[in-house]
Amino acid sequence: MNIQNIVIIGSGNLATNIAFAFKKIGVKIHFVYSRDANNAQQLAHQIGCSFTNNLNELPRTADLYIIAVADAAIHEVASKLTDCTGLFVHTSGSIAMNVFADYFTDYGVFYPLMSFSKSSILAFDTIPICVEANAEKNTKKLEYVAGLLTNRVQFLNSKDRQVLHLAAVFACNFTNLNYVIAEEILSKNTIPFDLLFPLILNSALKIQQQSPALLQTGPAIRNDLPVIETHLKMLEAMPEYKAVYALITTCIQHIKTKK
Amino acid sequence: MNIQNIVIIGSGNLATNIAFAFKKIGVKIHFVYSRDANNAQQLAHQIGCSFTNNLNELPRTADLYIIAVADAAIHEVASKLTDCTGLFVHTSGSIAMNVFADYFTDYGVFYPLMSFSKSSILAFDTIPICVEANAEKNTKKLEYVAGLLTNRVQFLNSKDRQVLHLAAVFACNFTNLNYVIAEEILSKNTIPFDLLFPLILNSALKIQQQSPALLQTGPAIRNDLPVIETHLKMLEAMPEYKAVYALITTCIQHIKTKK
Repeated sequence: MNIQNIVIIGSGNLATNIAFAFKKIGVKIHFVYSRDANNAQQLAHQIGCSFTNNLNELPRTADLYIIAVADAAIHEVASKLTDCTGLFVHTSGSIAMNVFADYFTDYGVFYPLMSFSKSSILAFDTIPICVEANAEKNTKKLEYVAGLLTNRVQFLNSKDRQVLHLAAVFACNFTNLNYVIAEEILSKNTIPFDLLFPLILNSALKIQQQSPALLQTGPAIRNDLPVIETHLKMLEAMPEYKAVYALITTCIQHIKTKK
Repeated sequence: MNIQNIVIIGSGNLATNIAFAFKKIGVKIHFVYSRDANNAQQLAHQIGCSFTNNLNELPRTADLYIIAVADAAIHEVASKLTDCTGLFVHTSGSIAMNVFADYFTDYGVFYPLMSFSKSSILAFDTIPICVEANAEKNTKKLEYVAGLLTNRVQFLNSKDRQVLHLAAVFACNFTNLNYVIAEEILSKNTIPFDLLFPLILNSALKIQQQSPALLQTGPAIRNDLPVIETHLKMLEAMPEYKAVYALITTCIQHIKTKK
């Protein structure tokens, strides 16, 4: 398969990481769009391609248009590209593929399951890319393109992608809140946060070997009431974290009951 | 310093990992005790030492007695070793050092900050060991012994150790619940859990470079109400997880306000 012309619409964390990933494997990005001309120029400069902040200036034909913008902007961007020919994908976990049904003939979804930031460009080879398309030939094309970037191409329909996104919110976003709370509790007592790094890393690695349901430890699963009581008292001055502690503890105790 | 005789009291996850760690660096464990004779024998066999299930049969003098039993059993074990001479430590995050004040002359705490299991014997070199003792000479001894096992010896008094333990409950135990929920949500939809592994690992690694407070992502911190509403609807059949989703989302939104 030959992918010569890729247009990237967006210059945020995900757009930037995808652009660098293609550059790394020698696939040329043809054009970058951002509504912010400076951002468009910066990313275009970094990967060596053309740029614009005007959707009308984008090439009207391309092999692949990757619309990597905020969920709320996907509709509007699509509505302004209806005279373009090519395969159109968005990169969102939560937006259904049929957002494009009224606008394009060939469309799909290209969702790399990762939390990206511009400041840390990631290697894509182990990042799952979830693909979905409206026709077999488009699915094949996305499978090919995703397969250039990663060893883990996953076909997921829009409903399952939404479920995966929800699971990722628990596993990643909510987990980060736990790190935030831990850091805050330690910092108030001038205890170094990095003492927790090996424990945190170990917890994240262990679940690759064994189901987390079998790995639950701590006072809640042991039903260690004296420790739980002490912890709740220690959190008196942080009522919101105390509420989190109480609810999560109950939730863990119910897991125990279910087993 | 010369540490020739170490007695390990306990044969659980932590006792087993400590015993193997000493064996690995060539420090001989003299005796292992467990109230369960089979467990005592098994661990003693693995590390090559004597064993007993009778506290009265333990040597009455040793360089170090490591009491690695459940929090609730520390008092009772200590009360039965009052005729012994040596340095006594427990390995608990939440029990104050002075649990030993009525029983021994030389005592302290030796708390490796990790979640251990017998099925996976860990290398100790990066695991923080938090030490505390009732006298300078005992602190020095614990610093020396801990330093044989790890590069990260941390002095912490009992109050700070309790704070660290609370932070670890958030960072490790509560985080594992997020993994449990994510796995359950995916499993109900026959979506492979391992799709989340790179994201989970990345989340655990990123906080070693940057404060988690600066790394919060997801619908809550973006205040992405349509996605939040959809997620809450998807959790209708799992009311407890829905409650967790709602509370944690509010909590993350407040972090945003605080910044």
